[in-house]
Amino acid sequence: MAELLDLVGIFVFALSGALMGVRKRLDVVGMAVLAEITALGGGIVRDLVLNVRPAAFQSVGYVVVPLAAAVVVFFFHPHVARVMPAILVFDAAGLGLFCAVGTAKALDYGLSPLHATLLGVTTAVGGGMLRDILAGEIPTLLYDRQLYALPALLGSTALAGLSIAGVYGWPATLAAAVLATGLRLAAMRYNWRAPLARGVGDQT
Amino acid sequence: MAELLDLVGIFVFALSGALMGVRKRLDVVGMAVLAEITALGGGIVRDLVLNVRPAAFQSVGYVVVPLAAAVVVFFFHPHVARVMPAILVFDAAGLGLFCAVGTAKALDYGLSPLHATLLGVTTAVGGGMLRDILAGEIPTLLYDRQLYALPALLGSTALAGLSIAGVYGWPATLAAAVLATGLRLAAMRYNWRAPLARGVGDQT
Amino acid sequence: MAELLDLVGIFVFALSGALMGVRKRLDVVGMAVLAEITALGGGIVRDLVLNVRPAAFQSVGYVVVPLAAAVVVFFFHPHVARVMPAILVFDAAGLGLFCAVGTAKALDYGLSPLHATLLGVTTAVGGGMLRDILAGEIPTLLYDRQLYALPALLGSTALAGLSIAGVYGWPATLAAAVLATGLRLAAMRYNWRAPLARGVGDQT
Repeated sequence: MAELLDLVGIFVFALSGALMGVRKRLDVVGMAVLAEITALGGGIVRDLVLNVRPAAFQSVGYVVVPLAAAVVVFFFHPHVARVMPAILVFDAAGLGLFCAVGTAKALDYGLSPLHATLLGVTTAVGGGMLRDILAGEIPTLLYDRQLYALPALLGSTALAGLSIAGVYGWPATLAAAVLATGLRLAAMRYNWRAPLARGVGDQT
Repeated sequence: MAELLDLVGIFVFALSGALMGVRKRLDVVGMAVLAEITALGGGIVRDLVLNVRPAAFQSVGYVVVPLAAAVVVFFFHPHVARVMPAILVFDAAGLGLFCAVGTAKALDYGLSPLHATLLGVTTAVGGGMLRDILAGEIPTLLYDRQLYALPALLGSTALAGLSIAGVYGWPATLAAAVLATGLRLAAMRYNWRAPLARGVGDQT
Repeated sequence: MAELLDLVGIFVFALSGALMGVRKRLDVVGMAVLAEITALGGGIVRDLVLNVRPAAFQSVGYVVVPLAAAVVVFFFHPHVARVMPAILVFDAAGLGLFCAVGTAKALDYGLSPLHATLLGVTTAVGGGMLRDILAGEIPTLLYDRQLYALPALLGSTALAGLSIAGVYGWPATLAAAVLATGLRLAAMRYNWRAPLARGVGDQT
């Protein structure tokens, strides 16, 4: 079940990478590379920091699923773009799941709750940041004022807090994933915005 | 012999990095940094994934050869640019060698054939991608439709396939390098192109 | 004392990251991310190469200090920009300290003097390069002809030379840091410039 949710998260992140490839008029190789890196980048960074061999280089599914997403976008991308609102819901689920799984793995490997939270957020947003850098854009996360990293931060914090209280295991991880996903969906629904520094908003 | 071929690959990759520095009007420091990262980046990423200390930080030649390439370009760059067609042949050899050596090292460290193939391609194309990102450009690999990653992928796949068949060692690695190099040269000669997703070609 | 100097270096590097966030009109999340990555990026790359868990994921101060810098810039950035000349002095101190500490740590972990020097420079300049890439710019280091990497290189080389002569420990590290800082300040004061490759300066 956990494995399945993980692959769903990888699939939707890979869709966003491949669609970015279409938007930037990349060829099929570029689409596949962006799909792989978007889906796997956050987890690879997490595992490098934890000093273990990245999970992406041990599981067949992690490699094949992003390729499948790239194939889907290659043949059906006008349809994929049309269902982008639905994809954003899956993306929110991927975000929640990745921050929770990343935080849990970091705690398992002995990081403090503070650092496990930081690494969980990195897991959730790292792939998307790499996607934007490779596509020649400033990572959306840094400027677009939509709440994306903050829901992941709150989910990771909640899971780290539960671990301090002695609560571990998949139910806690799933609860944190649901919390982060719900906050992300609420931020989209109610258009919550991150503030700019004083004076920045005026310099149009 | 293997060491020598490796250094030839590093040298031509470093030339392409230093020449990119000239094109972007970087200073001598920027040229040296680009030469080092282009030549060593792919192997460093490979070794980080394998969780071993990067070979680039253990060998004197790996550090000095890119500096030599930067010095050559610094003093003779109009000539280097003029011999760029010849350099592209060396670059094809570097590509083939790096994908084969990367795949072989990944197999040695116990990765599955699938993941060793992926890591071999990463070794071959990683340095060039870092070069383009540092120079403020979208990695050529992603959009220019020339076959660059695919020859590396086929060479790595061939070597992984040989390992499944029980064939190991330098002859197999060299054969895979020659295959990838030959495919790359053929792709340049006959102008083979990677496809775009449906509809993308029309949106001029 | 060493720890305190380290945190001062992290703070000023984080200020430069958060100020870049203001310049690029990023939101508060982007400012915090840039502050963290600018301050911690070089050390994280160093520790990944050394194949140890990054110090940034083991110390509370390393995570909190960049956030404090981002908060200061968020509320007071017109003042921070006005004191930028003073910050450049601190930045020079951070550069010197990071190259010395990075080289010392690399020597401790058994790298050769040559490779320890290379890794020390990487520690000193890595965070700033990541800051510029994330902000969508070519790393300043590569083109602006101010001497930034070279003072770090000379400081690292001096420390590696001392280690060959059998001199170790904090006094040597501090001396290397002071040397690199002094060279950086002198380069700023006397406007020393790195050369361009032949012919590049003419192509206006």
